[in-house]
Amino acid sequence: MAKNIQEYPAQTRPSPRQRLLEQFHNVRTFSEHLCEPLEIEDYVVQSMPDVSPTKWHLAHTSWFFETFILEPNLKDYRSPHPQYTYLFNSYYNSVGERHCRANRGLISRPTVQEIYVYRHYIDECMHNLLEQCDDATLERLTPLVTLGINHEQQHQELIVTDIKHVLSCNPLYPAYHTHKLTPVAATPALNWISYPEGIARIGFEGDGFFYDNEGPRHRQFLESYQLASRLVTNGEYLAFMNDGGYKNPLLWLSMGWSTVQSTEWEAPLYWEHLDGRWHMMTLSGLQEVDLNAPVCHVSYFEADAYARWANARLATEAEWEVAAQGLPLQGNFVESGALQPLPLQAHTHTPQAAQPEQMYGDVWEWTQSAYLAYPGYKPAPGAIGEYNGKFMCNQFVLRGGSCATSVTHIRPTYRNFFPPDARWQFMGIRLAREV
Amino acid sequence: MAKNIQEYPAQTRPSPRQRLLEQFHNVRTFSEHLCEPLEIEDYVVQSMPDVSPTKWHLAHTSWFFETFILEPNLKDYRSPHPQYTYLFNSYYNSVGERHCRANRGLISRPTVQEIYVYRHYIDECMHNLLEQCDDATLERLTPLVTLGINHEQQHQELIVTDIKHVLSCNPLYPAYHTHKLTPVAATPALNWISYPEGIARIGFEGDGFFYDNEGPRHRQFLESYQLASRLVTNGEYLAFMNDGGYKNPLLWLSMGWSTVQSTEWEAPLYWEHLDGRWHMMTLSGLQEVDLNAPVCHVSYFEADAYARWANARLATEAEWEVAAQGLPLQGNFVESGALQPLPLQAHTHTPQAAQPEQMYGDVWEWTQSAYLAYPGYKPAPGAIGEYNGKFMCNQFVLRGGSCATSVTHIRPTYRNFFPPDARWQFMGIRLAREV
Amino acid sequence: MAKNIQEYPAQTRPSPRQRLLEQFHNVRTFSEHLCEPLEIEDYVVQSMPDVSPTKWHLAHTSWFFETFILEPNLKDYRSPHPQYTYLFNSYYNSVGERHCRANRGLISRPTVQEIYVYRHYIDECMHNLLEQCDDATLERLTPLVTLGINHEQQHQELIVTDIKHVLSCNPLYPAYHTHKLTPVAATPALNWISYPEGIARIGFEGDGFFYDNEGPRHRQFLESYQLASRLVTNGEYLAFMNDGGYKNPLLWLSMGWSTVQSTEWEAPLYWEHLDGRWHMMTLSGLQEVDLNAPVCHVSYFEADAYARWANARLATEAEWEVAAQGLPLQGNFVESGALQPLPLQAHTHTPQAAQPEQMYGDVWEWTQSAYLAYPGYKPAPGAIGEYNGKFMCNQFVLRGGSCATSVTHIRPTYRNFFPPDARWQFMGIRLAREV
Amino acid sequence: MAKNIQEYPAQTRPSPRQRLLEQFHNVRTFSEHLCEPLEIEDYVVQSMPDVSPTKWHLAHTSWFFETFILEPNLKDYRSPHPQYTYLFNSYYNSVGERHCRANRGLISRPTVQEIYVYRHYIDECMHNLLEQCDDATLERLTPLVTLGINHEQQHQELIVTDIKHVLSCNPLYPAYHTHKLTPVAATPALNWISYPEGIARIGFEGDGFFYDNEGPRHRQFLESYQLASRLVTNGEYLAFMNDGGYKNPLLWLSMGWSTVQSTEWEAPLYWEHLDGRWHMMTLSGLQEVDLNAPVCHVSYFEADAYARWANARLATEAEWEVAAQGLPLQGNFVESGALQPLPLQAHTHTPQAAQPEQMYGDVWEWTQSAYLAYPGYKPAPGAIGEYNGKFMCNQFVLRGGSCATSVTHIRPTYRNFFPPDARWQFMGIRLAREV
Repeated sequence: MAKNIQEYPAQTRPSPRQRLLEQFHNVRTFSEHLCEPLEIEDYVVQSMPDVSPTKWHLAHTSWFFETFILEPNLKDYRSPHPQYTYLFNSYYNSVGERHCRANRGLISRPTVQEIYVYRHYIDECMHNLLEQCDDATLERLTPLVTLGINHEQQHQELIVTDIKHVLSCNPLYPAYHTHKLTPVAATPALNWISYPEGIARIGFEGDGFFYDNEGPRHRQFLESYQLASRLVTNGEYLAFMNDGGYKNPLLWLSMGWSTVQSTEWEAPLYWEHLDGRWHMMTLSGLQEVDLNAPVCHVSYFEADAYARWANARLATEAEWEVAAQGLPLQGNFVESGALQPLPLQAHTHTPQAAQPEQMYGDVWEWTQSAYLAYPGYKPAPGAIGEYNGKFMCNQFVLRGGSCATSVTHIRPTYRNFFPPDARWQFMGIRLAREV
Repeated sequence: MAKNIQEYPAQTRPSPRQRLLEQFHNVRTFSEHLCEPLEIEDYVVQSMPDVSPTKWHLAHTSWFFETFILEPNLKDYRSPHPQYTYLFNSYYNSVGERHCRANRGLISRPTVQEIYVYRHYIDECMHNLLEQCDDATLERLTPLVTLGINHEQQHQELIVTDIKHVLSCNPLYPAYHTHKLTPVAATPALNWISYPEGIARIGFEGDGFFYDNEGPRHRQFLESYQLASRLVTNGEYLAFMNDGGYKNPLLWLSMGWSTVQSTEWEAPLYWEHLDGRWHMMTLSGLQEVDLNAPVCHVSYFEADAYARWANARLATEAEWEVAAQGLPLQGNFVESGALQPLPLQAHTHTPQAAQPEQMYGDVWEWTQSAYLAYPGYKPAPGAIGEYNGKFMCNQFVLRGGSCATSVTHIRPTYRNFFPPDARWQFMGIRLAREV
Repeated sequence: MAKNIQEYPAQTRPSPRQRLLEQFHNVRTFSEHLCEPLEIEDYVVQSMPDVSPTKWHLAHTSWFFETFILEPNLKDYRSPHPQYTYLFNSYYNSVGERHCRANRGLISRPTVQEIYVYRHYIDECMHNLLEQCDDATLERLTPLVTLGINHEQQHQELIVTDIKHVLSCNPLYPAYHTHKLTPVAATPALNWISYPEGIARIGFEGDGFFYDNEGPRHRQFLESYQLASRLVTNGEYLAFMNDGGYKNPLLWLSMGWSTVQSTEWEAPLYWEHLDGRWHMMTLSGLQEVDLNAPVCHVSYFEADAYARWANARLATEAEWEVAAQGLPLQGNFVESGALQPLPLQAHTHTPQAAQPEQMYGDVWEWTQSAYLAYPGYKPAPGAIGEYNGKFMCNQFVLRGGSCATSVTHIRPTYRNFFPPDARWQFMGIRLAREV
Repeated sequence: MAKNIQEYPAQTRPSPRQRLLEQFHNVRTFSEHLCEPLEIEDYVVQSMPDVSPTKWHLAHTSWFFETFILEPNLKDYRSPHPQYTYLFNSYYNSVGERHCRANRGLISRPTVQEIYVYRHYIDECMHNLLEQCDDATLERLTPLVTLGINHEQQHQELIVTDIKHVLSCNPLYPAYHTHKLTPVAATPALNWISYPEGIARIGFEGDGFFYDNEGPRHRQFLESYQLASRLVTNGEYLAFMNDGGYKNPLLWLSMGWSTVQSTEWEAPLYWEHLDGRWHMMTLSGLQEVDLNAPVCHVSYFEADAYARWANARLATEAEWEVAAQGLPLQGNFVESGALQPLPLQAHTHTPQAAQPEQMYGDVWEWTQSAYLAYPGYKPAPGAIGEYNGKFMCNQFVLRGGSCATSVTHIRPTYRNFFPPDARWQFMGIRLAREV
């Protein structure tokens, strides 16, 4: 389904209006598509403060269009539920008071059914607005609608990761879907790809949508470095575990070691040792760990400790971005339907990768870069300016998208960010090192 | 509906087997009747650790019959869902590991529908067992089935109080039902009824069901005392509030004062000051506080502070029980459908009450008695022995039942108990004093 | 030294004024005597919120005399340090704001030396006031001074228990003193002493000092019961431990079991298993556990669990008091200088104890009675009324005094009280049971 | 006193051995000099987990020399107190178990006196070792001894900041010393000094001591930028406060705003509003806030919010370092004895500063750079490698030293680092902006 999002036959080139309407329609439909396997009860639960109930995601993404587009632009628009502004605002202080994030799971009403009615009402109003407004208005609204579309794609990723966390809290190991995986015979050897020193240009430039934190494009001086040709696998990570990786404080950042001790981590999130073998909770239920698949659901602390154990380090985000420049934007994204990182097939012919593989999709790759403003960074004006800038503290940048990201959402310059102890996103490891 | 539980025409006296089957059927049906107004989403939420999701209550009460009656007594009985034992055990250490109480709200599956299927399966098995077993077995099982029935009645009360708490967390003030109340013109004056000193006999004796903590019947010496003729009203409690009751540490127990400061209590639970008037959340939604209705949702700390302010005290549980002996067991119970305490109508004729009113129903009455073992108390053997005895610490006794209690569940000797800071049950105040 | 407190040669009977002065002098001196072994650094530390620094105890007991006697009664008295009222008030809300209890260990100034200067200034003012006031004033002041003396004795006990806790937090195991103990060959067998049913009279009556919570004297009906002839020993408690006492939830109150799990208790406070043997921290440093000595530093939860394991129970406070009536008030008190409970010597001649032994001194004995008001209890008026009544919640009564209590401070009617998880006082176990 | 550390008359050039001995002696003496104003009680207190008791600092700095120099290098050296290794290890996992950091204030023994004895013993052993070892050993030991000296200087700064925090917790406002300040008439205007774009070289290079985190020297590309000519003053910060700075979420990082709300910050640490005026606790006791002095004791969150309010930003550490290159290393350091930041005198003649002032001393200047590894960073081998690298997470870099730093300790490349909510160090604000 999502396949159609960007492919258009050349002869019937749609107008910008048609194209925006189609994008809007596609993204709104895809959110509901992701919810099809859910029971009503699944929509309600908030399993930890970082996780939001599915029904909150469905409502909040609608609230975004209502608040930033319909209310200021649709004459006589009145929200059918003025209290929803309070319930479904996430963190926009400019927009007013909001319901406590940690208590989203206490709200049984509006029901799932009522939220779908609300969504469809917003869809209809948006459709009418975009179809009927004059061209100047359309041009003015397009960036905001596009932001809303990208915002909804981010929440689609969260719908997947959050429902995985919710189901993982259930000792019955319920499955979201049943997806058959094809195992691979072996993982290709890990090679090192070299990049020379010099002044690199980093950050977004050009047409098309980007988040304010991706700009401005600017120069950074990079020493020469090497990047691993592929992601770290479960098998490699297990070697770290079996070598006492979680028992040796010298491998860890001080705060990482405190976290290991207080949380009693001894494996990635969702791993369980049952009947003498490592298993992991997936959206297809409990599975035995596939040693060839990329390791996933590890924190920055674990990625950093693994890299130290492997006599390597994580890349900086600039190093990653330079390596990604020019690579085709393809990989295991949400559109594949797997909803878990997939093993890389060993190559039968090519002796050695000249380009890194698995750069896009599968897992977000932790970098050693703190999430901070680029030189000359200016937040967007107004409430939209709260989108990115205010989180520039105590977070690390991740790059490349994951198996829960839309292919139409990712870019080489895309900066995702999470605190160093976060694990519930699809997060993994790619190594780097000095030449 | 619940009306039928105890009324039988004399000519068709049912057999003990029929009677037990009918009681079982009635109580099981009534639990579902209480859930009729709920949306599926409402069943899922746990709004604080003390509260359980409605679907948990429905499953746990079924698990009780399965674990203590079906499994040991029904040949070849196998639970259709062996994992439910883990999920729906409340606190019986003898029965094995159990799911963490505070995490009951994280479990979206089994769905509500699946839990009803489980309930009905248990109902059917129980029905078959009770209908087909021989008389000796029936006699042996009757006390356990009766305990299961009483256990379910306790959870019915919790279904009501817990869903009230869940809905109260929602800024939309959703109503469980719409129940019209008839206001009264005035509250009768509070009189003091005197009781002489002497050796009283306290505790259960006789036939019929009782909890082990109500026995053994024993002697206590009581000084002479007086009991208030009725409950404290919202209007009286408001006078305490307006007199700075929540601001004066000298009125409070030390631990009560700490609680007031850390929680910032300034009124009973569910009260909100809106537009210059006190309102309260009820199961019929937000209402203005009725000054003639009994004050409710106050902690022991508040009841004790109010009594001190009123130059009185709370009764001991023995004092309460002596006063209750011989009174008719009637009042505003769950069967009335009001699901909130009702104002007492001022008497047109009787000059002064010779007996206390509102002793049963409306609100549980805090006593100044710690919940402890009676002399010679012996817990029941086995897992059932975990029912009461192990909670005899840091709790206070409440007497008389509430508007969420079944009339068939209460007795003069019935001892309810909660920690001194609990407020979410229907809890209120009756004063006592020395002569 | 403390020996002199009550012994007076008959021929030179002191006047009430002389006697009060002498009592005042003795108690004030004894506090300082207890501090002689301390280093200045020891006076400063607060090792947990329940513990106060020694210098705080020395100042607070002086503040008590200053606030309740000197300021209202000594003309022109002005505190040399008006801020001390804020720093050294413990919990008297009537007297004004006070420094946070949990932060007493953050206050390095006034220095120990300055606090001694303050003490001696108060001593001198008190001495002058008591020596020079007229007889009517003396008579009026005597109850308050006596309260101050008893108050200081309570803090002397806390000085001992608190410094023990402070030193126990130090991995160097520093000793407060060096006290040689004489081991005993064996512990006498535990016998059961029977008491008949009937109406008992409980509570203080007569002349002399008592706390308001000991009255009024009143009647209680007691069933017949039996009391153990001696305290439970370390050896007996070790048998409970070795029998899995700390691993079996069925032996524990629910709240006790939660406490065991969250605190990971597996032995009494101060016990450590070193080199294959149980040791305990004492005021004479680390010692091997003496199996014949009374078990000490156990919580109510542990006392209750031990009793259940031993097929017995704890006594009520009324049962304890009836048994204590008429026994000589003697035992191992603070005046012995041992500062730890002592083993009971097996009797060579007497076949069986007709009276319980070790009722006074050694360890406070947990009762199963919650700490609540006696019938007709009225707190003393004014700030002094905050002394006892406001703590009547979630505490259990202990009886008989300990090796850190002054012999002149204890009475058969004396009610000590602590929360059920407290262990740092000298607390132990005497069993009771039904006949 | 500290004056002598680096000044030597040219004609009597000391030998490297003499010089090392003198540096060692000076730094050891200076630690004790800083403690001269303290009472014994002051040495004991730990007022929050970040703060250590003075006696711990004195012991830990000695332990450092004992562990890393004496034990491996002095034949037959045996610690006089082997348990001190456990008590006085700070965070070196390689060296073994250690006493919990948060419990340092619970340890009354060893006494202050005993710690001085321990110090002097270490001093003597070090003196003998350094005086008598052969030249090859001396050369080998010099870097380690120098590290120990620098380590002790860091703890000297902590002695000052920690005792300030301890004394500030005391409602008596005790003063550490009495230091007279000369007020200034006015603060010079804030100018902007411009720096061009280009490849800068950052990080330590050359002879002399440096921490591993200052290297390797490397290239960074900098856009052109401007730096404020002086620090932000209390008066300017007060304007931010009076403009509602602490009430406006749009000025704050998201995590900063949460911190403001949970801590109820409304001014810098140590500020108190008394009698209608802002005061602050200093080491000379409570003072009225001097509007011309640099603002101090602000967190990164506050520095960042202030900069946003002022339409500016904080500098990156590279920007700061480029500006500092070539400036004379002088300022208000610990040697001045002021122990608080001093106002800058308005210039009578110079029209405008060509160079930034107050770059060194007074206050550590928050930068917007996260504390991370420089390209090619390698931690030192062994336990010393735990010194810096393992803290590279969730901290921000501060530059320039403070009024509690030794002038001999600071360098242009020196990187200090603290979490964004830390305030108890002397931390202040310098603004930067784009050209």
